[in-house]
Amino acid sequence: MRVYISDLSKYVGQTVELRGWVYNTRSSGKVKFLQVRDGTGFCQCIFFRGECDESSFTEFEKLTQESTVYVTGVVRAEPRSPGGYELGAKNLEIKHITENYPITPKEHGTDFLMSQRHLWLRSKNQHAIMRVRSEIISAIRSFFDGRGFTLMDAPIFTPNACEGTSTLFETQYFDDKAYLSQSGQLYAEACAAAHGKVYCFGPTFRAEKSKTRRHLIEFWMVEPEVAFNDMYDNMDLAEQFVEYIVQRVLTNRADELKVLERDVEKLKPIKTPFPRLHYKEAAEIIKKENPEFIIGDDFGAPDETIISSKFDKPVFVHHYPSAIKAFYMKRDPKEPESAMGCDLLATEGYGEVIGGGQREDNLDLLLERLKEHGLKQEFFEWYLDLRRYGAFQSAGFGLGLERTVAWICGLPHIRETIPFPRMYGRMYP
Amino acid sequence: MRVYISDLSKYVGQTVELRGWVYNTRSSGKVKFLQVRDGTGFCQCIFFRGECDESSFTEFEKLTQESTVYVTGVVRAEPRSPGGYELGAKNLEIKHITENYPITPKEHGTDFLMSQRHLWLRSKNQHAIMRVRSEIISAIRSFFDGRGFTLMDAPIFTPNACEGTSTLFETQYFDDKAYLSQSGQLYAEACAAAHGKVYCFGPTFRAEKSKTRRHLIEFWMVEPEVAFNDMYDNMDLAEQFVEYIVQRVLTNRADELKVLERDVEKLKPIKTPFPRLHYKEAAEIIKKENPEFIIGDDFGAPDETIISSKFDKPVFVHHYPSAIKAFYMKRDPKEPESAMGCDLLATEGYGEVIGGGQREDNLDLLLERLKEHGLKQEFFEWYLDLRRYGAFQSAGFGLGLERTVAWICGLPHIRETIPFPRMYGRMYP
Repeated sequence: MRVYISDLSKYVGQTVELRGWVYNTRSSGKVKFLQVRDGTGFCQCIFFRGECDESSFTEFEKLTQESTVYVTGVVRAEPRSPGGYELGAKNLEIKHITENYPITPKEHGTDFLMSQRHLWLRSKNQHAIMRVRSEIISAIRSFFDGRGFTLMDAPIFTPNACEGTSTLFETQYFDDKAYLSQSGQLYAEACAAAHGKVYCFGPTFRAEKSKTRRHLIEFWMVEPEVAFNDMYDNMDLAEQFVEYIVQRVLTNRADELKVLERDVEKLKPIKTPFPRLHYKEAAEIIKKENPEFIIGDDFGAPDETIISSKFDKPVFVHHYPSAIKAFYMKRDPKEPESAMGCDLLATEGYGEVIGGGQREDNLDLLLERLKEHGLKQEFFEWYLDLRRYGAFQSAGFGLGLERTVAWICGLPHIRETIPFPRMYGRMYP
Repeated sequence: MRVYISDLSKYVGQTVELRGWVYNTRSSGKVKFLQVRDGTGFCQCIFFRGECDESSFTEFEKLTQESTVYVTGVVRAEPRSPGGYELGAKNLEIKHITENYPITPKEHGTDFLMSQRHLWLRSKNQHAIMRVRSEIISAIRSFFDGRGFTLMDAPIFTPNACEGTSTLFETQYFDDKAYLSQSGQLYAEACAAAHGKVYCFGPTFRAEKSKTRRHLIEFWMVEPEVAFNDMYDNMDLAEQFVEYIVQRVLTNRADELKVLERDVEKLKPIKTPFPRLHYKEAAEIIKKENPEFIIGDDFGAPDETIISSKFDKPVFVHHYPSAIKAFYMKRDPKEPESAMGCDLLATEGYGEVIGGGQREDNLDLLLERLKEHGLKQEFFEWYLDLRRYGAFQSAGFGLGLERTVAWICGLPHIRETIPFPRMYGRMYP
């Protein structure tokens, strides 16, 4: 009976077949140890001379790292073993002998490992990161599905650019030009008028010629949009959402965080409410430590770190100067130079993980903003229709998946947070 | 207190505020009826002269279809009302008056409605379809997450083409060319070696210059891949998966299926096991009704319909001629002219919803296939590594989301199954 290592607890005393790859081997006379990984876990298989097939005992010596094996044996509880179970092996079937596996226990440079990404994913740390990523995605979807949101994915091919065209990927769409989406937000607003509470969650693209530890060319973003919410409702939703994600990973992926040596004490305090700073308050804090910062400017990564270092929770900054924000952001009627945008800065200097805010719902003001931003009205007619027919207050945000994975896993660089990263200068494998 | 219509049952006897849009109005002397939709449901709000503000009673007359309103009133149980509840209105606040809403209760042509897609999504049928779509996506993810699969999304930008280049979208990726993914499968195989059971689920792209009722340029595909599975395991997994999706929609989206007038009796029998036909058996069935069909050819849409008309469950067809299948499909050692591929044809003539099979795990045979298909080895070196280092038997499949939505909703055309369809000749809105 073929079973997965993660299910061994159900088969104690039974004879089962494990299928996997050689992680490690050790021999000492009449007993040989084989550590097998099958993707769901690791299991020590013990070959005692006389208790297993004689041929298996001999064949064992051919095994190399990452060779493919099917092992049959009896499941035993073994408290000293990492998974709690081991296999009293009866038979070894070698399906493939691996020669010269490129990734060895010695240190490799990152560039080499990135070029071997298809194999590097099998390594323990990378395995743990992908498990956390998968858990975060599942948490994101559970959060919204459980609160009556309808998932409505935005298109990737768009005729228009949401925030300028300089960082857009372009493709020939039959007789037209299409651009690859940088955000599903405008579409999510149309969907919010149909379903009230919606979200989209897909890949987005930025053609940025920069190699930083926070940027990918291709990254996933989840974007909820709620009709009739204002900026403050939006912060309420965002902080509940982030608490939910972090606490679920702490509960369900404790083993993986341990593999990654993540200091979970830094994650435990991440519970609502989160501090909320007006842009001007945030700017004052930065100015004290970075005198070169000009009030009115957007924050650089070091500025964000200054702010986040003051708190053990993520921090909202709201009311950014309208001049540095996108055309669709509503200005606060009480302070017209400020946009009702609210970004969330992660703890420990991980920077902005959420950007969002309230949308401009007045047709005339939106037309003005389009002009100011040099955007062609004709591309946005459908979006303007949302202000012509049943105009509504609306707010939402976007959370960058990979930045969130880097933050929760405690990784210094975003490149390990996605199975096959696309960066400036890298598209292989 | 602001509440959603879907939550009204919790607030009987309480004063609440609904925020939404005018669906319908009706007046008869001293009582006026306002049907509000808020995206989560519909609610009848009843304005009695003397029981509501006099100004609200007067303002009511200004209301038009899709005007934005906030209505305050007391929640009452009302068994005759569609949702089971109604609002005894006290106050009406008009937030926006809509003039000349383009979509009226009269019949519109599909082309017009598609150009108004951002508004058409508010209509009852479109609303129901999107709810079913969201449910199907949630079911897909629950199925795999609940069975220990790790979600590992494949990249959209790829340096190589999986099945020929004629239908690929190309973009400039800095100094290189990138192609938009048509399938995540090759990447999923690499991930299966790391996590055993994986799936990817994202948008895929085909630049097909065809206008059919089954094709989109941009569509979502879920692709599980399981290390050590063979073609038969793969069919077991696929049939459990399809049963799960269909039965969950029947349970959770019965109201929406009713709106769509879907004959659910046709969906109820969709339970495992599904019939399985060898290609030759399927070809014989087709030949009887379509004498022009040539054995050895791929099935056309009418051929698929001939087969599906014979069963009240979806049907697997396996062992297609190798010549008409992709390079990565394993040939059956027992009948080398046949590929160990298995496709699933939906009921009622909805055609292929799943394509999949067992992968060629032998390096030399795979190299031969690449040559036969005229594909450049250099682009596939990383994929070939999976046969060099720990080669393993593997199988998986892809399920097209939009075809599945069309099938379960009983729609004649795929264009209504995705929020913003991208088709040959259409990219707006």
